[in-house]
Amino acid sequence: MGRIRVRLKERSYDILTGSGVLGRSGAYLSSLNIGKDAYIITNSLLKIKYGDILAGSLSAKGFNVRFKTVPDSEKSKSLKTACPLLKNLAFFDKNRKVFIVAFGGGVIGDLAGFIAAVYKRGIPYIQVPTTLLAQVDASIGGKTALDLDAGKNLVGAFYQPKIVLSDTGLLKSLARRQISSGMAEVIKYAIIGESGLFTYLEKNRDAVFSFRPAALERIISSCAKIKAGIVERDEKETLGLRTVLNFGHTMGHAIESASAYRTYNHGEAVALGIITACDLSRRMGLIGDKLFLRIRNLISAYHLPVKLKGVSLHEVVKAHYHDKKFSGKENKLVLIRGLSRPVAAKNVPLALIKQSLSSIF
Amino acid sequence: MGRIRVRLKERSYDILTGSGVLGRSGAYLSSLNIGKDAYIITNSLLKIKYGDILAGSLSAKGFNVRFKTVPDSEKSKSLKTACPLLKNLAFFDKNRKVFIVAFGGGVIGDLAGFIAAVYKRGIPYIQVPTTLLAQVDASIGGKTALDLDAGKNLVGAFYQPKIVLSDTGLLKSLARRQISSGMAEVIKYAIIGESGLFTYLEKNRDAVFSFRPAALERIISSCAKIKAGIVERDEKETLGLRTVLNFGHTMGHAIESASAYRTYNHGEAVALGIITACDLSRRMGLIGDKLFLRIRNLISAYHLPVKLKGVSLHEVVKAHYHDKKFSGKENKLVLIRGLSRPVAAKNVPLALIKQSLSSIF
Repeated sequence: MGRIRVRLKERSYDILTGSGVLGRSGAYLSSLNIGKDAYIITNSLLKIKYGDILAGSLSAKGFNVRFKTVPDSEKSKSLKTACPLLKNLAFFDKNRKVFIVAFGGGVIGDLAGFIAAVYKRGIPYIQVPTTLLAQVDASIGGKTALDLDAGKNLVGAFYQPKIVLSDTGLLKSLARRQISSGMAEVIKYAIIGESGLFTYLEKNRDAVFSFRPAALERIISSCAKIKAGIVERDEKETLGLRTVLNFGHTMGHAIESASAYRTYNHGEAVALGIITACDLSRRMGLIGDKLFLRIRNLISAYHLPVKLKGVSLHEVVKAHYHDKKFSGKENKLVLIRGLSRPVAAKNVPLALIKQSLSSIF
Repeated sequence: MGRIRVRLKERSYDILTGSGVLGRSGAYLSSLNIGKDAYIITNSLLKIKYGDILAGSLSAKGFNVRFKTVPDSEKSKSLKTACPLLKNLAFFDKNRKVFIVAFGGGVIGDLAGFIAAVYKRGIPYIQVPTTLLAQVDASIGGKTALDLDAGKNLVGAFYQPKIVLSDTGLLKSLARRQISSGMAEVIKYAIIGESGLFTYLEKNRDAVFSFRPAALERIISSCAKIKAGIVERDEKETLGLRTVLNFGHTMGHAIESASAYRTYNHGEAVALGIITACDLSRRMGLIGDKLFLRIRNLISAYHLPVKLKGVSLHEVVKAHYHDKKFSGKENKLVLIRGLSRPVAAKNVPLALIKQSLSSIF
């Protein structure tokens, strides 16, 4: 089992990774002093599949358990879902010793984390991510959020969990497309943070898709380490250091938004965003053709798209202007000078952005 | 004009107190680098009375201004009010340079502060308190909150403003009952934090009720200084130091709740809570009869109640068990050993609490 410490003074916490972590969750929690009553936010499918393991482990250590399910949809990341949950939570919280368990993918992590952040101005919560995407990225770093009609993640808080329990055994039940989606973020981390992971991904594709525990643990631990290192230095995104985590995401979000969140899932859109950012890096002379092709090939090898379909260049360009990171006419994009060498580039000429976007059509 | 600094590292800010501060708000804000677009949350009456002064001052310094009014009622501190405001704010925020102005009493400060705390994981906001209660207490310290059906202030965040502008000139239009309500908090600060203020209050009642600027500024500045000092040492109420601010509030909340928030306003309930806490302190041998009577007389002099009507002892005792500060069978009450000498007492016998409560019937 892997254990990575996220060092944030009194908000520090561990990320535990490995097969079977879920069944030992009660033991991990009993040493944390986080309360007695577990309010588990999840979806119906997860509750049916793994609810007994989680509840059994918690009950065995004396925790009281209440499940609350929300639809398995991005729409659950809304005020409409959050408000009734807060009301329900307040009535469950008779003993004033409640804590939240975010048991699910990124949507549930964001929703449950936000509820924990604002209920009584912050109660303890733990992340139990069930998708690869959530295990390598969303569950770490304390960003919680809800969407508004005007845009995604517009309501939220920086709020750290007390522990992250990433059970690699849960990944077996994911569809290949979901694994690929998570791998887009893994590839991002490999590019911006660890060339050793990049080489490992090039060599171990089959191990990943056959859910080999050692491979999954290696990948998740590496990503967690890279993200923890960045979050430790810039917890609330005030120093600009956390910006590198947006590598591939500015264009990725624009692609998701332009295609109305239908054609591509988050990871697929990020994969296309990574290719665009790398193409831009190449056009600006920051990296050579060889590295660009290695990255493009790796993305393709993990069954992620390298061409964009069903949406026009114009629509993507228009959507990218709505990104939170853009203020007025200015833009800020994360590019690379090589593996493990991300750079923030300001005011990249629109003509160049369009050329790079054209290359994925 | 008084200027008090709240020192919280990168979250430090000034509290400015004096007559005419509102008309200079644009000038104060222009040095803060907080954005360009002011989203002012207020109520209709305040907008009619003072909207032009505030908007004129901001516009003169190049700020764009949008007013958003909410009903002048505790009911505005709700998810039902906050959710549409967040949506509206997101559509107003075209230039991504928006900040919030909380222009009103405690309800508006709590609501607007919470919106600022969660929109985009936190945007700048300023407090422009318009009641004595808000100027001496609610606007300082960064506690923001909404109510739920299950209880008051159950949803919220610790989130500091960028500046507090307390215009004493605005107090002239308050009813005497509202001044008295604010004075209950002032008396609390005098008891727990500054015996000089206590003596000042004993001697200057008429100056307060005739709105003499020097008296109001003295009072507001003193309270701000005391609260700032406590908040600086325990910003997020994690060390127990901030607990002393609850002096008079545990029983005050129980009285408000037992009387369904109708008979007594917040300050009046706190006044009765202070008397109960002082009576308890006397019964436990912490203070003598003389100080108890001085306190009781001061409360009475400021037209605050010293007897509780319209509710039974049983109802108040029942309600006090619902206080957030109580966990299970334990209780924690703030008592005093003398002026400026608050103490946190744990597990005070219920029989003693009942005796002290009986004394105000």
